[in-house]
Amino acid sequence: MPPFDVPEGNPFGPHNLPYGVFSRAGSDERSVGVRLGDHVLDAGAAAHALGSPYASLLARPSLGPLLAAGRTAWSDVRRALTAWVTVPAHRETVESFLHPLSEVTLHLPFEVADYVDFYASENHSRNVGQIFRPDAADSLTPNWKHLPIGYHGRAGTVVVSGTDVVRPRGQRKAPTDPAPVFGPSVRLDIEAEVGFVVGVPSQMGEPVPLSAFRDHVFGLCLLNDWSARDIQAWEYVPLGPFLGKSFATSVSAWITPLDALEEARVAPPERTHPLLAYLDDAQEERAGYDLHISVAINGRTVSEPPFSTMYWTAAQQLAHMTVNGACLRTGDLYGSGTVSGPTERERGSLLELTWNGRDPLELPDGKRTFLEDGDVVTLTAWAPGPGGTRVGLGEVAGRVVPSP
Amino acid sequence: MPPFDVPEGNPFGPHNLPYGVFSRAGSDERSVGVRLGDHVLDAGAAAHALGSPYASLLARPSLGPLLAAGRTAWSDVRRALTAWVTVPAHRETVESFLHPLSEVTLHLPFEVADYVDFYASENHSRNVGQIFRPDAADSLTPNWKHLPIGYHGRAGTVVVSGTDVVRPRGQRKAPTDPAPVFGPSVRLDIEAEVGFVVGVPSQMGEPVPLSAFRDHVFGLCLLNDWSARDIQAWEYVPLGPFLGKSFATSVSAWITPLDALEEARVAPPERTHPLLAYLDDAQEERAGYDLHISVAINGRTVSEPPFSTMYWTAAQQLAHMTVNGACLRTGDLYGSGTVSGPTERERGSLLELTWNGRDPLELPDGKRTFLEDGDVVTLTAWAPGPGGTRVGLGEVAGRVVPSP
Repeated sequence: MPPFDVPEGNPFGPHNLPYGVFSRAGSDERSVGVRLGDHVLDAGAAAHALGSPYASLLARPSLGPLLAAGRTAWSDVRRALTAWVTVPAHRETVESFLHPLSEVTLHLPFEVADYVDFYASENHSRNVGQIFRPDAADSLTPNWKHLPIGYHGRAGTVVVSGTDVVRPRGQRKAPTDPAPVFGPSVRLDIEAEVGFVVGVPSQMGEPVPLSAFRDHVFGLCLLNDWSARDIQAWEYVPLGPFLGKSFATSVSAWITPLDALEEARVAPPERTHPLLAYLDDAQEERAGYDLHISVAINGRTVSEPPFSTMYWTAAQQLAHMTVNGACLRTGDLYGSGTVSGPTERERGSLLELTWNGRDPLELPDGKRTFLEDGDVVTLTAWAPGPGGTRVGLGEVAGRVVPSP
Repeated sequence: MPPFDVPEGNPFGPHNLPYGVFSRAGSDERSVGVRLGDHVLDAGAAAHALGSPYASLLARPSLGPLLAAGRTAWSDVRRALTAWVTVPAHRETVESFLHPLSEVTLHLPFEVADYVDFYASENHSRNVGQIFRPDAADSLTPNWKHLPIGYHGRAGTVVVSGTDVVRPRGQRKAPTDPAPVFGPSVRLDIEAEVGFVVGVPSQMGEPVPLSAFRDHVFGLCLLNDWSARDIQAWEYVPLGPFLGKSFATSVSAWITPLDALEEARVAPPERTHPLLAYLDDAQEERAGYDLHISVAINGRTVSEPPFSTMYWTAAQQLAHMTVNGACLRTGDLYGSGTVSGPTERERGSLLELTWNGRDPLELPDGKRTFLEDGDVVTLTAWAPGPGGTRVGLGEVAGRVVPSP
């Protein structure tokens, strides 16, 4: 039987142990689960059976209490879990609380408090600038290298991987249209991103410095920031994206703790402009993460965005988000912004991959500029783990269904 | 003793009955309260004592359950409360659950789910356009008359009236500055708005039509959308306001149910542009609200913005916010946008009142362009009630305290 028999090289081995929330067939009861290979461990039940002091954090229907418990608890719980799934004496007990992934339903693992989305890939931002402002002297806005640009999104429409996404309807108006028209979006897009999950809150009026990033952020997930480019283009001046983004944001069911990603830490790209003190990460060690993302449409990989190329780090984004005194809450989620590398096959949106529809993608079932009804988009990723292993990030998948 | 002795003409008489959440001195226990004159009725305790079937909705630490209960319950509870505070047979019982306002602490009355802010006053938007884009042919952006422009704000920093507001710090860069500088905002402003509170949720993928506005929205409050104009100016292109707004949004402690504002309903301004069907309110009866707002700094009234002049109604904002399939949750809050009337004394922000600092206000303690540390800003409002009465909206007040 599985647990200790997870094959060598499985990206969800005992070196990973991401957290999620699951229910079993025929039951509404939600439980914190930890992924091990193709199984999920009922962490709370195992903790109770093993007499663990962490049962009160784990025997819950949400990751919320664990998120709020703080960095020392996060490490302690991870150490305990590692022992449970590796020490032979626990084998029989642990196996009795393992369920095949195919037999459980995965849920949104925590209640999203505030959701913020950033715009932190220089390649992505330059591509978008060139597409939409071809005559501008610089494809980046003047503020881009001085602060991580971000905005608030809709927390109530963050959904877990596997949730269908209804094609949004709304207003659009091409420059040549005499008036706006209403209907289903005809330029439905994705944005391949990484989401960061805040565990420990902060006080209003007290900024969170770069150095406190890991005291507040528990882990990360994959995130697809679905975008209706036609709705967005008509609405976004002067106050930013609204309905072009707010219809759905998909996240992976598994939250990978930062503690599982120590080997994946890398230096961010060289800073080309001097930074104000609260963002200056010259003294921060390896503040980037070397995550290798894949974007697939209907099973065909169309892009492999490299997260290590992101100009702004998650720690800088957290420091910026709070420097004005805004507080954090348990369950705050922030997206990195679309991840795009320097080459064509590394772009994280169809907007860029097809250069605004000019260069369609060739898929086995035909050409794509933007998404068609029935398309399934899947993001997956891995990171370097200890001893040459790979740490798998849980996938985020979603199918486009027609407007009603 | 008070309740039935609320003086004639008191704007918080039995015709009003707004809801809030309070605690008594020396207690952490929060209770739903209903304001009556200068007293607050412990609604849950009274409901229990009177054997009311609504005790389960009212004997709570938050308005959440009442908000979620829906329009029929809202009307039924209001009818019951009206009887309790007007029928002599209940007098002794009701009086035993009344507490002077001066002896209670008022709390944020519900957990804010998503917070959205609109930009729906034509006068405000034209003023801002003229100030920031003096050379533009039209002071409104091309989309303004076709959709209610809005964006998501930070729900976690919505605070109740009376909460101090710490002057935010951040980046700013005047066009003439060679590089951005960091420090406390030097252009701290207010925005006088009305906030609408969603009670009944909606399903993802299912837009809420204009006609369903009152099935979802429970009531309204006053809202001060504090704004750091210097931070906002540097950050907001291309994705909209972020840190210039996210440090604090103050709301009144009292939520006035829409049922108390029947006499205040008025037709909105004439629409100058044809509207798409989902926004066309030609058939909606009196979709605007005639609210008379006052803005005071340190007790001196500086402006009286008329809410009846708002171009976009709350029902249109709700229809727009959900037309792309975004769902509503209990506790969603949306701001009307700054309320500014056509004349100088009716502007809802210092940006407009001082024309971006050019024309300082004269206050008893000196001139003001933007807010100084120690300034107390108070918004109050009233609406026409039945029989020539006035319905008072609870005030929203906040004091500016220095950056740390």
